[in-house]
Amino acid sequence: MMFRLADLAAHVGAEVAGQPDRRIVAVRSLDAAGPEDLSFLVNIKHRRRAENSGAGAIVAPPEARDLPQDLLICADPEVAMVDLLELFHPSPSPESGVHSTAIVDDSAVIADSAYVGPFAVVEAGSVIGADSIVHAHVHLGSRVRLGERVVLHPHVTIYADTEIGDDVAVHSGSVLGADGHGYIQRDGRYRKIPQVGRLVVESDVEIGANSAVDRATLERTRIGRGTKIDNLVQIGHNVDLGEDGMVCSGVGIAGSTTIGHSVVMAGHSGFSDHLQIGDRVTVGAKSGVLQDLGSDQMVGGTPAIDYSKWRRQWVMVGRLEEMNRRLRAVEKKLLDLEGSEH
Amino acid sequence: MMFRLADLAAHVGAEVAGQPDRRIVAVRSLDAAGPEDLSFLVNIKHRRRAENSGAGAIVAPPEARDLPQDLLICADPEVAMVDLLELFHPSPSPESGVHSTAIVDDSAVIADSAYVGPFAVVEAGSVIGADSIVHAHVHLGSRVRLGERVVLHPHVTIYADTEIGDDVAVHSGSVLGADGHGYIQRDGRYRKIPQVGRLVVESDVEIGANSAVDRATLERTRIGRGTKIDNLVQIGHNVDLGEDGMVCSGVGIAGSTTIGHSVVMAGHSGFSDHLQIGDRVTVGAKSGVLQDLGSDQMVGGTPAIDYSKWRRQWVMVGRLEEMNRRLRAVEKKLLDLEGSEH
Amino acid sequence: MMFRLADLAAHVGAEVAGQPDRRIVAVRSLDAAGPEDLSFLVNIKHRRRAENSGAGAIVAPPEARDLPQDLLICADPEVAMVDLLELFHPSPSPESGVHSTAIVDDSAVIADSAYVGPFAVVEAGSVIGADSIVHAHVHLGSRVRLGERVVLHPHVTIYADTEIGDDVAVHSGSVLGADGHGYIQRDGRYRKIPQVGRLVVESDVEIGANSAVDRATLERTRIGRGTKIDNLVQIGHNVDLGEDGMVCSGVGIAGSTTIGHSVVMAGHSGFSDHLQIGDRVTVGAKSGVLQDLGSDQMVGGTPAIDYSKWRRQWVMVGRLEEMNRRLRAVEKKLLDLEGSEH
Repeated sequence: MMFRLADLAAHVGAEVAGQPDRRIVAVRSLDAAGPEDLSFLVNIKHRRRAENSGAGAIVAPPEARDLPQDLLICADPEVAMVDLLELFHPSPSPESGVHSTAIVDDSAVIADSAYVGPFAVVEAGSVIGADSIVHAHVHLGSRVRLGERVVLHPHVTIYADTEIGDDVAVHSGSVLGADGHGYIQRDGRYRKIPQVGRLVVESDVEIGANSAVDRATLERTRIGRGTKIDNLVQIGHNVDLGEDGMVCSGVGIAGSTTIGHSVVMAGHSGFSDHLQIGDRVTVGAKSGVLQDLGSDQMVGGTPAIDYSKWRRQWVMVGRLEEMNRRLRAVEKKLLDLEGSEH
Repeated sequence: MMFRLADLAAHVGAEVAGQPDRRIVAVRSLDAAGPEDLSFLVNIKHRRRAENSGAGAIVAPPEARDLPQDLLICADPEVAMVDLLELFHPSPSPESGVHSTAIVDDSAVIADSAYVGPFAVVEAGSVIGADSIVHAHVHLGSRVRLGERVVLHPHVTIYADTEIGDDVAVHSGSVLGADGHGYIQRDGRYRKIPQVGRLVVESDVEIGANSAVDRATLERTRIGRGTKIDNLVQIGHNVDLGEDGMVCSGVGIAGSTTIGHSVVMAGHSGFSDHLQIGDRVTVGAKSGVLQDLGSDQMVGGTPAIDYSKWRRQWVMVGRLEEMNRRLRAVEKKLLDLEGSEH
Repeated sequence: MMFRLADLAAHVGAEVAGQPDRRIVAVRSLDAAGPEDLSFLVNIKHRRRAENSGAGAIVAPPEARDLPQDLLICADPEVAMVDLLELFHPSPSPESGVHSTAIVDDSAVIADSAYVGPFAVVEAGSVIGADSIVHAHVHLGSRVRLGERVVLHPHVTIYADTEIGDDVAVHSGSVLGADGHGYIQRDGRYRKIPQVGRLVVESDVEIGANSAVDRATLERTRIGRGTKIDNLVQIGHNVDLGEDGMVCSGVGIAGSTTIGHSVVMAGHSGFSDHLQIGDRVTVGAKSGVLQDLGSDQMVGGTPAIDYSKWRRQWVMVGRLEEMNRRLRAVEKKLLDLEGSEH
């Protein structure tokens, strides 16, 4: 693939500062780029790296107009970067159709423009929407519904009755709609509560590799529109996870917890079961949320508390040995005072 | 599926308070149920939700006898709920037999009543017991033994020599019997210790999605009868995990740790290697157990300590800034006293 | 398999103390071994277990020369143990060739001595080196390169363009080279940053079950030579993880973090994104590293600090109630003193 700098400028609405005919063949990082590569200065604090870059051209904000390379000047270089990465790397799309080795139940309905790969299994009553891609080894249980432009990477497993919206991507090894961890205990033994609800994944969700989202006990587990879930994430049964969430790797959300929209969960954080969490909450890495939270909070620690308070607590914990020394000194002085009074 | 209320009462040994001929077609949650649905009041604190429920009938304890709906009164509504969910949702059982695309070694022994699904692979010397279900894409290594009524969901992998008891269910993506993480280090490099032991999963165990239980180095890793393991759990080599345990999502048990029976491990908790843990221990969410524990304890924190002590410590940590202010005040008063004495 | 004790001694360069003709058929643990088994005393603190062992022979260090069993005396019994386990348990190697059900693109290049198992899929341009084993259900995307003597266990997924060195083993369910969790946020919504870099796994790496290592955004994610990764580990996009690392189960390394060589990460520990971590760092179990670390440190806690300082802090936190009582006593004494002065 090859573009003139001026063509790229037109594509993203940028201004060319330099040679419009410069030939660009790839998008690379500032450190790796060469004379036929385009790179990006997204954060002005990396200006020095940009100055030293061997890139033929750099997408940069107006305040970096004096960089020595040819430039594409634009107000939001990060958006331009995404636009240009999409231009240079169009998603590879297999031809439509069902691979000869796939096993598709006669009652399944597969759009003509969809693709079903080798060794995929599609059980009775499932529906695959237009332009969706079901890669090799994917397993769709009965009555699974996939919207349009869904991509299921190899080795994804979707249990029966799961419903997936449009423009959803699920990476390899993830399991959607398995039974939740629900038991009753009698006489010291556990007995399984049948998990007969389902899972609904709304549109524009991405789920990473080896994550697990359980079906509901009776009604539905929900992943809200636009929420992005990383690798190795656990979402329990009956969870209602709102729109535009950001769920980093290793997060666990225990059963029946409801989470609002635009919530950010940093790596390895977790939520107890049956909690009510508001909108626009941010949870720090490795934090454990053990009680309900209102909206617009940032929390850290286990049990999670206000984030700045948690940081101050850590400062204070670090001063405990000093405090203990001071306390001993005070005790000694008091003893001396008492001694001098007798 | 449709039942008369009186039939359901007979099934669970409940008393009908209302119309015995009411027709029930499904089991739903209190909030979602309609006039042909049955719902449940398990915990009396949800009484208000029950009062407002549109359910045609509710399974309820005797103290909720005045609810406005038709009722099935019984002493243990939770057990009745499980009984009725099983009645309305019998496990779908594929026909017995081996799918034409499965690859089964000639030396494997598969019960006539068992099922082996599409693209499953069963290697030499493996045995599959009566009424067991090996779903699509499952891989059984050599000499794997499955008991009766075992269900392996799609994409389960079982390494060679693993032994699985009766009535075990394993969800998609879980890997049983892989090599443990055992190495010796010489001259700064690691060398693998061959992992030649095996894994034994006793009867009535359930394992969630994307979990991993390693084989032993020399002898056996064991999961005791009745233990329930959630998604994304790690159980290391040589672990001996007792009966009737409850292992929530994200738990990790490091190598060679022995855990008694009826131990509850909340989400994201973990155990160091080579520990001895007693019976009826409960470990709080996100806690890290770093030393041996006797029986009948509840612990929290990392390193995990007595749970109520851990909670009190957190209260005290929250008061550290106040304590520091008080300490400063004391120091100042002492200085003043000293000053006044000179 | 059967060996004379003298043959085993020769194999590992040990001295026989006892009957050279003793027949040995298996390697077992001290507690399980019988008269035809060989066992090991690696750590002298287990001497009592060795004394009571029913093993026919024991590999032991010179200082345990007075054990009652026949002995193989050698300076490093642990290395001998590994040598002998390899002798008794040679890796089962399937015959070379491509299974008739595997789907291999015409443009893929597979060494004559390599093996590709049932239902494996190998896409265009991939290369599989000599003596490599690609087990059943493995999926190799386009242009994947495997070195020599690589073993991919069943159900491994490798995304396009991933490069894997020699002598690498990957256990079932692991996903290498999936998209990293990279988005830009505009107007409250996330938009995916195309992840167009790749993943390089150097030689002599082992990766456990159900782990995930992401491809880079633009350039490469790297796992250094000799690093050993356990089950359920997450390694984010653009991470550079050095040589001879030890990554225990449940570890998460967030995007763009660089880690030196010979770093040990205990179970459930984690690293924030964009950190610089030196060489020979050890991170305690469940710790969260939130800032850069120089070389030769041992850290614990979240945020992670010097390990011995972290342990001292916990001792102090455990004394907080006592400190508060002492502070109250001091305050009371001061009040008394003030009272007596007026």
